[in-house]
Amino acid sequence: MNEGAQNIKRPIAVLQRSINKPVRVRLKNSEEYRGNMVNIDAYMNVFLEDAAEYDDKGDMVTNYGRVVIRGNNVLFVLIEDTLKI
Amino acid sequence: MNEGAQNIKRPIAVLQRSINKPVRVRLKNSEEYRGNMVNIDAYMNVFLEDAAEYDDKGDMVTNYGRVVIRGNNVLFVLIEDTLKI
Amino acid sequence: MNEGAQNIKRPIAVLQRSINKPVRVRLKNSEEYRGNMVNIDAYMNVFLEDAAEYDDKGDMVTNYGRVVIRGNNVLFVLIEDTLKI
Amino acid sequence: MNEGAQNIKRPIAVLQRSINKPVRVRLKNSEEYRGNMVNIDAYMNVFLEDAAEYDDKGDMVTNYGRVVIRGNNVLFVLIEDTLKI
Amino acid sequence: MNEGAQNIKRPIAVLQRSINKPVRVRLKNSEEYRGNMVNIDAYMNVFLEDAAEYDDKGDMVTNYGRVVIRGNNVLFVLIEDTLKI
Amino acid sequence: MNEGAQNIKRPIAVLQRSINKPVRVRLKNSEEYRGNMVNIDAYMNVFLEDAAEYDDKGDMVTNYGRVVIRGNNVLFVLIEDTLKI
Amino acid sequence: MNEGAQNIKRPIAVLQRSINKPVRVRLKNSEEYRGNMVNIDAYMNVFLEDAAEYDDKGDMVTNYGRVVIRGNNVLFVLIEDTLKI
Repeated sequence: MNEGAQNIKRPIAVLQRSINKPVRVRLKNSEEYRGNMVNIDAYMNVFLEDAAEYDDKGDMVTNYGRVVIRGNNVLFVLIEDTLKI
Repeated sequence: MNEGAQNIKRPIAVLQRSINKPVRVRLKNSEEYRGNMVNIDAYMNVFLEDAAEYDDKGDMVTNYGRVVIRGNNVLFVLIEDTLKI
Repeated sequence: MNEGAQNIKRPIAVLQRSINKPVRVRLKNSEEYRGNMVNIDAYMNVFLEDAAEYDDKGDMVTNYGRVVIRGNNVLFVLIEDTLKI
Repeated sequence: MNEGAQNIKRPIAVLQRSINKPVRVRLKNSEEYRGNMVNIDAYMNVFLEDAAEYDDKGDMVTNYGRVVIRGNNVLFVLIEDTLKI
Repeated sequence: MNEGAQNIKRPIAVLQRSINKPVRVRLKNSEEYRGNMVNIDAYMNVFLEDAAEYDDKGDMVTNYGRVVIRGNNVLFVLIEDTLKI
Repeated sequence: MNEGAQNIKRPIAVLQRSINKPVRVRLKNSEEYRGNMVNIDAYMNVFLEDAAEYDDKGDMVTNYGRVVIRGNNVLFVLIEDTLKI
Repeated sequence: MNEGAQNIKRPIAVLQRSINKPVRVRLKNSEEYRGNMVNIDAYMNVFLEDAAEYDDKGDMVTNYGRVVIRGNNVLFVLIEDTLKI
């Protein structure tokens, strides 16, 4: 596989090509936010629209609207759509 | 979508275009501060006017006036206004 | 509003124009120090004169005189004076 | 052994030559994620496909699909295949 | 006040002009070390002579002699002398 | 002693000359991993082969094979061989 | 005192002139390691020979031989010899 094919699979690059898709953002403190990922930067600061907090049973706890989550709190970002990248 | 259209949606850029709007700043220690966001920098240091601390029921705990919150304490910044960016 | 008008409202710039004013420095460990802010740098290292620690009822616990607080401990800096910046 | 032979054994280089292999990612909070490592960067941000969380008995807890784990949460990455590098 | 007058009051500059003075170094873990501050760098690594640990009643716990405290542990440095800077 | 003689004793340099030797890697969370150190970088990311976790009595808990431990988790690296460097 | 006289008293410089001397390395987790300091770098990564862990009564707990302690774990380094620097 050539270098270019690898670069577009870099973790941050994958996230940045997933904008405008639904994501789940799991935090270090175990909280989970779901929403539409409007944008994300290299530090993993995430801008979500239609964001809501969910508990560990998958029930919505609070609706937040538009939030920017500071990247250093992030444990992982799960990309909801099922298409291959 | 072109590159310029993406750049103005970067998380920090979105926050910096939201100055003079009401925001909620949730901290890692679960405290929440609300106020008018006079300014914010790339590290997410936030300058709030008419700032007050709120408990998790949404009741005001303490009124602080003007505070600068150090960015590394921030969990997320919620932009209160309901207009699309 | 022009760029220059924005720059002087940057969080660190606001703090640096507030020197020689009374401030409250809330730390991550919940301690609060009050005093006259002689100087502050971009990392939020703060040099206070007439510094004292206060408990959460607003009573003075200990008088310290002149202290330099290391910036990474800071939760927020509250500017006591009531003038608009 | 010459310098070139050493460089390809650098920890990050070894991980980057292990892409498309099954890995286990143990986190600081003791959680373990297994999946196919599509990519990993120098900060150890990891992009996993077919990712699932496992408990400490080796049973699957939750299936996540595609996730990007932020590198600063990682304790170690275990390379599952048994071939010598 | 001119720029030069401000610079000599920067927190790190104040500490570096206080060398050879008695200081108290309060750590994040609440321990307090007192001694003669032989030197301090911009990261707040502190070299103390005649250093001793004190408990919160102000009684000496242990005498250490010469120690270098790593800066990231520091909560604050209190300058003991009572002269104005 | 001359400068060159000192440089080869720098902590990271000593570790990098100890590759292919058995080591014990003690982590901040008190876990201990032992194995053959294939490589280590300046951040103390460690690549171990024949790695296994040991409890504090020196008994093996789990056999892991090949793992890369992220450097920021490391408390110390103990070099097993008894030869002088 | 001139600039050169000050520089050789910088905390890291003092430690680097103390190599081949016995030291005590106190860690953030309260553990204490004693040994001969073969080398130390600017990040306070420490290479100790004849290293052993001691409990808070000053009794030896475990003998480790040669270890490299990662600098970010260090609380302080105590220089055992009693000569003035």
